[in-house]
Amino acid sequence: MVIRPYGYAIWEGIQKYMDAKFKATGVQNAYFPQLIPYSFITKEASHVEGFAPELALVTRGGGKELEEPLVVRPTSETIVNNMLSQWIQSYRDLPMLLNQWCNVHRWEMRTRPFIRTLEFLWQEGHTAHATAEEAEERAMQMIRVYAEFAQTQAAMPVIPGRKSRVESFAGANVTYTIEAMMGDKKALQAGTSHNLGDNFAKAFDTTFLDDKGETQYVHQSSWGVSTRLIGGILMTHGDDSGLILPPRLAPIQVVVVPIWKKDEEKEAVMASVDSIISSLSNAGVRTHLDADQSKSPGWKFNQYEMKGVPIRIEVGPKDVAKGACVVARRDVPGKEGKEFGVSIEPAALETKVNDVLNDIQNSMLQKATEFRDANIVDVKTMDELKATIEAGKWARCGWEGTDEEEKAIKEETGATIRCFPFDQPAGEHTCLMSGKPAKEVCIFAKSY
Amino acid sequence: MVIRPYGYAIWEGIQKYMDAKFKATGVQNAYFPQLIPYSFITKEASHVEGFAPELALVTRGGGKELEEPLVVRPTSETIVNNMLSQWIQSYRDLPMLLNQWCNVHRWEMRTRPFIRTLEFLWQEGHTAHATAEEAEERAMQMIRVYAEFAQTQAAMPVIPGRKSRVESFAGANVTYTIEAMMGDKKALQAGTSHNLGDNFAKAFDTTFLDDKGETQYVHQSSWGVSTRLIGGILMTHGDDSGLILPPRLAPIQVVVVPIWKKDEEKEAVMASVDSIISSLSNAGVRTHLDADQSKSPGWKFNQYEMKGVPIRIEVGPKDVAKGACVVARRDVPGKEGKEFGVSIEPAALETKVNDVLNDIQNSMLQKATEFRDANIVDVKTMDELKATIEAGKWARCGWEGTDEEEKAIKEETGATIRCFPFDQPAGEHTCLMSGKPAKEVCIFAKSY
Repeated sequence: MVIRPYGYAIWEGIQKYMDAKFKATGVQNAYFPQLIPYSFITKEASHVEGFAPELALVTRGGGKELEEPLVVRPTSETIVNNMLSQWIQSYRDLPMLLNQWCNVHRWEMRTRPFIRTLEFLWQEGHTAHATAEEAEERAMQMIRVYAEFAQTQAAMPVIPGRKSRVESFAGANVTYTIEAMMGDKKALQAGTSHNLGDNFAKAFDTTFLDDKGETQYVHQSSWGVSTRLIGGILMTHGDDSGLILPPRLAPIQVVVVPIWKKDEEKEAVMASVDSIISSLSNAGVRTHLDADQSKSPGWKFNQYEMKGVPIRIEVGPKDVAKGACVVARRDVPGKEGKEFGVSIEPAALETKVNDVLNDIQNSMLQKATEFRDANIVDVKTMDELKATIEAGKWARCGWEGTDEEEKAIKEETGATIRCFPFDQPAGEHTCLMSGKPAKEVCIFAKSY
Repeated sequence: MVIRPYGYAIWEGIQKYMDAKFKATGVQNAYFPQLIPYSFITKEASHVEGFAPELALVTRGGGKELEEPLVVRPTSETIVNNMLSQWIQSYRDLPMLLNQWCNVHRWEMRTRPFIRTLEFLWQEGHTAHATAEEAEERAMQMIRVYAEFAQTQAAMPVIPGRKSRVESFAGANVTYTIEAMMGDKKALQAGTSHNLGDNFAKAFDTTFLDDKGETQYVHQSSWGVSTRLIGGILMTHGDDSGLILPPRLAPIQVVVVPIWKKDEEKEAVMASVDSIISSLSNAGVRTHLDADQSKSPGWKFNQYEMKGVPIRIEVGPKDVAKGACVVARRDVPGKEGKEFGVSIEPAALETKVNDVLNDIQNSMLQKATEFRDANIVDVKTMDELKATIEAGKWARCGWEGTDEEEKAIKEETGATIRCFPFDQPAGEHTCLMSGKPAKEVCIFAKSY
């Protein structure tokens, strides 16, 4: 997959937000080697079992066959622990809170742009702590950062929760996730955070001397989001005319399209447009001018609709005469989304545009939330679950079943347990399998 | 090579500066696949000749032997052109100005931290233009961006110039470089920019229809700097006590060390220190407090000297009594670098600290420039050249020699032509080999 500039700019927006949030919690960026000795991967038993089928291997370097193949990083727990076991000596070295922005490879059979690609870009956080409680706290803290990003920046409502054992990360004690409903009602795992316990610490002998001078294993977390988020944003909000981008992440927030037919109109229109561009840019709005006269205004309208630009401003000779412009919203297509006679006086326009951008951001989240909530069905029996999944919806039910029962449902319906939501509905629940009381509900859905 | 947070923070400073400069010239970021089909690399004859010996190859993926090995990106001209040939149709698509921040691998025999590593981080710019002139202009523009970074941010004086044919990039018509002198007087190629002409365009059929409807090859540039710059900064400025970091790139610009012996002194000292930290931080100074009482002040002084922190502020009970602190400069060690009785009144301290940071930045550049200029010798004969190289210095001389003569000098002295400086000395030059008039002087030196 190639990421062209417009898509990459969305990723830069994601990075900017996340990186600042990570640093605010004390995390520092670092960089670990991409090529990992094969023997590292095999040290943690469930890790190698999970990742071995999808590894890319470097077997030749500098013209020679390598003695040991090198794994092209699918994730970095092993190489990170190889270093942590050397860096960490004492409880004074803890917690160690690291993150890296990088590329990873997973040799997938079926790929889909942004959602499942052989190579993708991500960040992977790796932390080491003196106690199990701290590792758990950090894993929870980071899934909350992801959930907040999804809600406030991507306008993508997510259900944060715990993965089932079957669906957890290979090598984790527990995996937390944020699950989003796409426009086709399939679930997308949009970010995960793992409490790794001392599994990797034991495999790599990552120990420290505690304040009593006793040797202890560290407790760890790891957590990541990837360019998959871009796919999630596109598939949550898009419609038949193309993308609809949330204003906070849109590379272009406002496109300005000048319109004139006669040459003598040009000067006045462009003067008005220049004033709009400069006042919005000064106000920090990401603004783009398209004055290309080889394309018609109609062609441009379609083009920027397809690209999901939140606001289009049109300026023609009649607008100029009134000191005004037309503001059109991407999320409300057609005449209804157009506001005529909007003043181009800088302070007024700036307020207007910021209000509309905020309104678009909020109503995108609201619309996606309503859509999701309307498509989650509480089920009590296997028949209800099957019917719900067949209808393409999400099924919520009490669950105390076994791993085997969970796998059997996947086999039969194609749906998996997406998560046990942190936010559990009130009342009593009964297990879908046994009909007996269940502590928690889970959500079954088909997923990407 | 692992890059730990303190080193990575220097890289983040480099990225922040460069990325903004690139974007100001119209460049956009993108991302291309890391694994490149081997056949792509072989399409440009001199390119494959240059890179083949140092490639890492993926031969297995997802448990299967691959039909065609994949090259782990050593640089991306080939995969970029594979895409550009599909994206570029018309002169309206030009110029195309792309950059990517990524990792690359070159299977080097001898490695050295930051300077020559099997894997390194870099940015690689790739541009396509309608005319040869535009490609040349872009190649020159970017080497000037690098030179300006080196001078103004890294305090690393560089000589920008043109590489000899022998030393140019595999596949380029001409390579521009910035060459820096390290503390051991070896030369470091700190950044390069290539005019690729239409070499890759011909190999990949990257063409466009010009405004007359005729098919033309694009003309291209590519340019990059890497984590090698970190090595350059360390080796330009360091001394026997450790690093000396230029203030504009130092992850910590000011470390504050509170000093007290008796418990009753603590409160007043810490109140003073907190006031210093908050006023400097508010003023945008990257400030770090080290109040760890398990380490002595002397130990801390050594520690932050080793880490190259430009300014250390000491606050003890006597300082508190005077509403003052001690400001110590890393670049002027010992008593001479200490200023006593500096007011901690916020506005005064902020001005003081900013003045000292600027002064350190300027005097680091000046010192390095004087050191470099004192170690460049104008030579007229082979004997002088040999003596100069043996003395570890740089030799400057007129040069009209052949590629073979240049290689013979490398064989005999270990020195290579670093560049033909853009800034040529006045007067007439004679060729070192023939004694006849030479258009230009070049610089011979041993290099990393």
